[in-house]
Amino acid sequence: MTATALDNVRIVLVNTSHPGNIGAAARAMKNMGLSRLYLVDPQQYPANEASWRAASAKDVLETAVVVSSLEEAVADCSLVVGTSARGRRIPWPLVTPRECGERAVSEIGGKEPTGHQVAIVFGREDRGMTNEELQVCNYHVHIPSNPDYSSLNLGCAVQVLSYELRMAYLASQEGQLPVFDDWDMPPATSAAQEHYFTHLQETLERLDFLQPGNPRQTMTRLRRLYARVRMDEMELNILRGVLTATQNYVCQSDKKVAELEAQIEALKA
Amino acid sequence: MTATALDNVRIVLVNTSHPGNIGAAARAMKNMGLSRLYLVDPQQYPANEASWRAASAKDVLETAVVVSSLEEAVADCSLVVGTSARGRRIPWPLVTPRECGERAVSEIGGKEPTGHQVAIVFGREDRGMTNEELQVCNYHVHIPSNPDYSSLNLGCAVQVLSYELRMAYLASQEGQLPVFDDWDMPPATSAAQEHYFTHLQETLERLDFLQPGNPRQTMTRLRRLYARVRMDEMELNILRGVLTATQNYVCQSDKKVAELEAQIEALKA
Repeated sequence: MTATALDNVRIVLVNTSHPGNIGAAARAMKNMGLSRLYLVDPQQYPANEASWRAASAKDVLETAVVVSSLEEAVADCSLVVGTSARGRRIPWPLVTPRECGERAVSEIGGKEPTGHQVAIVFGREDRGMTNEELQVCNYHVHIPSNPDYSSLNLGCAVQVLSYELRMAYLASQEGQLPVFDDWDMPPATSAAQEHYFTHLQETLERLDFLQPGNPRQTMTRLRRLYARVRMDEMELNILRGVLTATQNYVCQSDKKVAELEAQIEALKA
Repeated sequence: MTATALDNVRIVLVNTSHPGNIGAAARAMKNMGLSRLYLVDPQQYPANEASWRAASAKDVLETAVVVSSLEEAVADCSLVVGTSARGRRIPWPLVTPRECGERAVSEIGGKEPTGHQVAIVFGREDRGMTNEELQVCNYHVHIPSNPDYSSLNLGCAVQVLSYELRMAYLASQEGQLPVFDDWDMPPATSAAQEHYFTHLQETLERLDFLQPGNPRQTMTRLRRLYARVRMDEMELNILRGVLTATQNYVCQSDKKVAELEAQIEALKA
């Protein structure tokens, strides 16, 4: 795995009951480019179930650091964010997962690593984090779940926060959100589109689909449709090919009919 | 569970191998306020493992709709988004999970439901979606995962996209997300689009623009073009009108030629 600034973010799981969840967390982390897992006093670990749920993220498990307290796990971190249900008696500064990702990446420096360390902490499956543990944190983060069923599976909670870390990290690399610029053909020019519209209108008039005197509404709707699709060059060529094939068919049919009619005239004469 | 606009978004799982993943998907959905699950040809279902992984989301499993094809699962949807790894030979319009959430919520109308239906489609654990299935979609969505280990667990992929749906939904409740309700016509359904593609292919074969044996590349490019334009009902009707006009012209020409040829035969006799 290539070293990145995300190596300066650790995921901390506190007193996890089910080893399968540790494996699921490892997989979610590696999928999102995170590598550093801390386990605070896990109830069953190591465990086969952790390994098979980790799938191809066994390296994350192998380098996991097992410690006995949250304080130990986060000692060298400058930013610690704890996951929490809402509505603690004394509310902590609460951020969304998105803000959590953005603040963490600001801390580690997405493009030019600062060397600062960040921890995102997840509590027990059944009871979350204790008040003492929550107070170790700079911020709390809450996944805005359905009030009727708010308790996410631990692996899923790690997935969501790791995903937001990755999104913020990718945004920091590119100055913006990730751009998907892998189209296979260059876009058609405006001029090429105008030629297409002219060609289309001629063809539709030839088919008696449009009245030459009154094409407006239909052509306007067709223009709107093709304008917003942002056609590429090859797509435009295919559409023009269809129009040409249609016109050729019409032309040849008309010619054939004219020839046959001439033959009939000649035979009658 | 309170009814919300999110009830107009369905999660579609195609040909899932492991029932545990169906349960995990149901739980992730309910945690994020989604309720409608479609299972296309699941390999083992119902199954105990699905139920226990669903935890308190058994109601989502109980109301799940099992169908035999993707087309059935999305027939009444106006927006269909498929999850896909990058790098198909003919790339489809690709959105991030965040954009996917925002577009889906625009479609359903977060605050004042439009009644339009949206499907988010997830492929098989090992092989994802087939090319044919991917071509049913308007857009593809890719979770920007670690290139060194990009394959998310199915439940985790459902979690991330459901989370982004919920984030967009919550933003829409607070007026933070624009709703595109200023269009003049309702969007065309997936079923109507499929009828259009069948009609288009028939017509192009009739014009000898496509060889009946070998339509693939060109039809794929045409499908991609019309899928991403997000046609409304009237636009689709205009395009089908064009095809019908073309077919009528071809038919009448052929008939006329046959008639004239018969006349010539009669005159020669």
